[in-house]
Amino acid sequence: MVMNEKSINNVFNVKSPKWRTSITNIEPNKITTRNYSQSDLIEDISFTEMIYLLTKGKLPSKNESKMFNAILVSFSDHGLTPPSTQSARIIASGGSSIQYSVAGGLLAFGKNHAGAIEHSMNLLQTSLKKFPDKNVCDIAENIVNDYCLKFDKIPGFGHRIHDKDPRATKILELAEKYNCIGNHVKLALAIQDILIEKKNINLNIDGANASVLLDLGFNSDIGVGIFMIGRLPGLVAHVIEEQSNEIPFRNFIDINDIFYDGGISK
Amino acid sequence: MVMNEKSINNVFNVKSPKWRTSITNIEPNKITTRNYSQSDLIEDISFTEMIYLLTKGKLPSKNESKMFNAILVSFSDHGLTPPSTQSARIIASGGSSIQYSVAGGLLAFGKNHAGAIEHSMNLLQTSLKKFPDKNVCDIAENIVNDYCLKFDKIPGFGHRIHDKDPRATKILELAEKYNCIGNHVKLALAIQDILIEKKNINLNIDGANASVLLDLGFNSDIGVGIFMIGRLPGLVAHVIEEQSNEIPFRNFIDINDIFYDGGISK
Amino acid sequence: MVMNEKSINNVFNVKSPKWRTSITNIEPNKITTRNYSQSDLIEDISFTEMIYLLTKGKLPSKNESKMFNAILVSFSDHGLTPPSTQSARIIASGGSSIQYSVAGGLLAFGKNHAGAIEHSMNLLQTSLKKFPDKNVCDIAENIVNDYCLKFDKIPGFGHRIHDKDPRATKILELAEKYNCIGNHVKLALAIQDILIEKKNINLNIDGANASVLLDLGFNSDIGVGIFMIGRLPGLVAHVIEEQSNEIPFRNFIDINDIFYDGGISK
Amino acid sequence: MVMNEKSINNVFNVKSPKWRTSITNIEPNKITTRNYSQSDLIEDISFTEMIYLLTKGKLPSKNESKMFNAILVSFSDHGLTPPSTQSARIIASGGSSIQYSVAGGLLAFGKNHAGAIEHSMNLLQTSLKKFPDKNVCDIAENIVNDYCLKFDKIPGFGHRIHDKDPRATKILELAEKYNCIGNHVKLALAIQDILIEKKNINLNIDGANASVLLDLGFNSDIGVGIFMIGRLPGLVAHVIEEQSNEIPFRNFIDINDIFYDGGISK
Repeated sequence: MVMNEKSINNVFNVKSPKWRTSITNIEPNKITTRNYSQSDLIEDISFTEMIYLLTKGKLPSKNESKMFNAILVSFSDHGLTPPSTQSARIIASGGSSIQYSVAGGLLAFGKNHAGAIEHSMNLLQTSLKKFPDKNVCDIAENIVNDYCLKFDKIPGFGHRIHDKDPRATKILELAEKYNCIGNHVKLALAIQDILIEKKNINLNIDGANASVLLDLGFNSDIGVGIFMIGRLPGLVAHVIEEQSNEIPFRNFIDINDIFYDGGISK
Repeated sequence: MVMNEKSINNVFNVKSPKWRTSITNIEPNKITTRNYSQSDLIEDISFTEMIYLLTKGKLPSKNESKMFNAILVSFSDHGLTPPSTQSARIIASGGSSIQYSVAGGLLAFGKNHAGAIEHSMNLLQTSLKKFPDKNVCDIAENIVNDYCLKFDKIPGFGHRIHDKDPRATKILELAEKYNCIGNHVKLALAIQDILIEKKNINLNIDGANASVLLDLGFNSDIGVGIFMIGRLPGLVAHVIEEQSNEIPFRNFIDINDIFYDGGISK
Repeated sequence: MVMNEKSINNVFNVKSPKWRTSITNIEPNKITTRNYSQSDLIEDISFTEMIYLLTKGKLPSKNESKMFNAILVSFSDHGLTPPSTQSARIIASGGSSIQYSVAGGLLAFGKNHAGAIEHSMNLLQTSLKKFPDKNVCDIAENIVNDYCLKFDKIPGFGHRIHDKDPRATKILELAEKYNCIGNHVKLALAIQDILIEKKNINLNIDGANASVLLDLGFNSDIGVGIFMIGRLPGLVAHVIEEQSNEIPFRNFIDINDIFYDGGISK
Repeated sequence: MVMNEKSINNVFNVKSPKWRTSITNIEPNKITTRNYSQSDLIEDISFTEMIYLLTKGKLPSKNESKMFNAILVSFSDHGLTPPSTQSARIIASGGSSIQYSVAGGLLAFGKNHAGAIEHSMNLLQTSLKKFPDKNVCDIAENIVNDYCLKFDKIPGFGHRIHDKDPRATKILELAEKYNCIGNHVKLALAIQDILIEKKNINLNIDGANASVLLDLGFNSDIGVGIFMIGRLPGLVAHVIEEQSNEIPFRNFIDINDIFYDGGISK
């Protein structure tokens, strides 16, 4: 029953699996991230800058750092309203420790929840690449017409609670202050101009942050990652609050609110 | 088969389930965290300070902010060596998106992995409370003797890779610089003095951060939460690296390295 | 900056990490589980028996198979009432695929939720081992008195919704029919006798299954594992129902039901 | 700062959120799944049939039950080779309990891992619907040509380890025995005929089970769900084995096998 290693090795022609990384090097008593000594980083840079270094591979400029900081803060909590917060608290109520509760919160970042930022980044990025010679107002009109024809919502615009998302307003104001406006923000603003006129719809926080992250040079594949880093402190705070203030296994659903439709078939 | 709501309501005497929170209030076009407008917070505070506000309920002083920032940076990555990083990358290799891969990384923060910081906080906190009149050197000696008798390792001391964890050294140096040394740090240092003499064992990053977090006024129940917030950027970076540089469903285990012991019984 | 492998190898004295297993052997075109060919197992045994083989290491007898089957069926769903079902559906509503939603449901199996079966198994097993010569009625009385003094609930007894859990009744009836009653079930019944007389409290499904699993020879460390296997089909059905019948990102919390207590401090 | 409920209610026009289900009805001392009493189900049906009832809404015929049972058994373990098993064991090694370790295993069911069954179901279902009048051989040829032109692998065919997956062979044999062959299986076999001739590529277990599940009347959206139910016992067994036989926090990666590429940029 014992496997004949040699022969299987020949059959599969397996090469030794190696783990490679460019992020952090570990040697005894020496830790280096992106070629900087962690001892220096701990003393010299902000957590915001460490996040930038880890996810982008280099340190930000002063203005980039301030802008990126504002983005992270703007993501950090939206109260009890999102599914992620609710699932994290319900899991905590089952008696699971903080790391499992928060992980369960992250699992709710599905295509309807955290997807907007990535979709928004993709839309802005692709549109600009497709029409390198058009001006942003024309591209914006194309996009709005496209989505109108599909009867679809443009990702990054409109909010189920806020007419005018105060976080988006502030982010765009700071993008100007910190000199972080490039073509992606311009395109987002051009779309917003049309949508305000037509339907009084504004950029939401996902759309605003998506456009600024692109102008900072981030790719769309990191969008959800940045959102998660920003939102984690909120999820941690909610789980601690649930554990501290509420009874275990509390009734989230009033039994009156459960309706049994009858089995699908007999 | 349809449930008789009224009668069940009487049987259970259910009160309307309410969701309460002190973290963030959401009104249309107005978002308030811990009674501060999020618009102001986005402009005025660092992400480190937002994390402090969310988890502790108030803003830090200047020195507290600098100290807390150093702690977060010091947690942010330890390369490919921890189980959390490995599980996150393996899950990404299965083709799951970043949020699920990173959530899977958090799940590896079990009692052998992220538990040290909480255990270390508990040990320091409990010991000081139990002997309010003893000096820290005597308490330290008690602790070391206790653990010697149990043949157990003291949580927060020693590291499987580093003799002298460079992150711990830097954190303790900054605790002095930022005037954040209280009784918990003093107790941790007193234990370290004994352990260095006896066995050349030093504080690791969990022990150093545990003692400083206690002197900043954090409770032990938030220990793993702070660690998670600090480590998330590293996990995000590793998942992006896996997705960008490696082939899907890659062979993490060389088939030669799998041994079949035979079934437990027939 | 490149790591010197040889020297590190010497420093750490690393042995080659090997993966060992006794569960399933994989060779090209040949799959063997617990020394049985999977081709044979697929044709000859029930899924219940496969679960028994995987978790216990050997195939069950006819009666053991019927008993174990009843236990799995009895765990399979408890409607919308448990936190695990709610968190799975909320995560699905965020737009996450079925595997992530169901995984999020499992995360809610914390110490208040799925813990009962393990605690119940531990209690029965430890009590019988501690007093090998006492009869079960005396041991039962000891246990009840112990918990009375602690003002604590005995794990496996009582249910927040059912006075008399119909699943427990059926499981105990079948344990007699299939000749699966040993000392653990006898002890559980003896405790129930006292509790019914004192407070009209009965065995719940966790307690009934815990006692029968012990008499089938399972250890308490597998308790939550068996419960998860049994409950997974229910979680899968709920996630599919959520995805099929409900709108994405639906409002689980009426915004009226959210109360903001005010920030903890200024 | 306190929310004005009435006015917000008007702004949002919130309707009372209700939870609806057709799966299981809970009343005190009475549990009904798909309109059958759970007490009866526990005594009368197999776990396989309970899974069928929960996921399909009705009980299977005798032959359907045998076929579905074979499918579940065939999914139940593939040793240490899949990412899901590895991530579950690594998480267990971090010291997380069984439910969190197994949940982490499920998270690895991404588009490269468990996706095949759903993609295979979609391909077979869509192809048959698109050409209701063509015979399966012609449709099969179309499909193979399509994928050849795209230089893509057809989902459900070929296996990284097995030339001829013994599980698939057995499942197809049983589909004939239990009279469960319909157009989807016929189409799968027709594709296999072409692929064997061209490249000696056979149906794998995902493809075989996909085609039979379709002929049993399951939709493709449940494919990953059935796979998860089938694989869970294997994941549970592996986590228990890790916890029982291996040291905590064991070294899955030999430090020699980690290479630091240098930071991405300076």
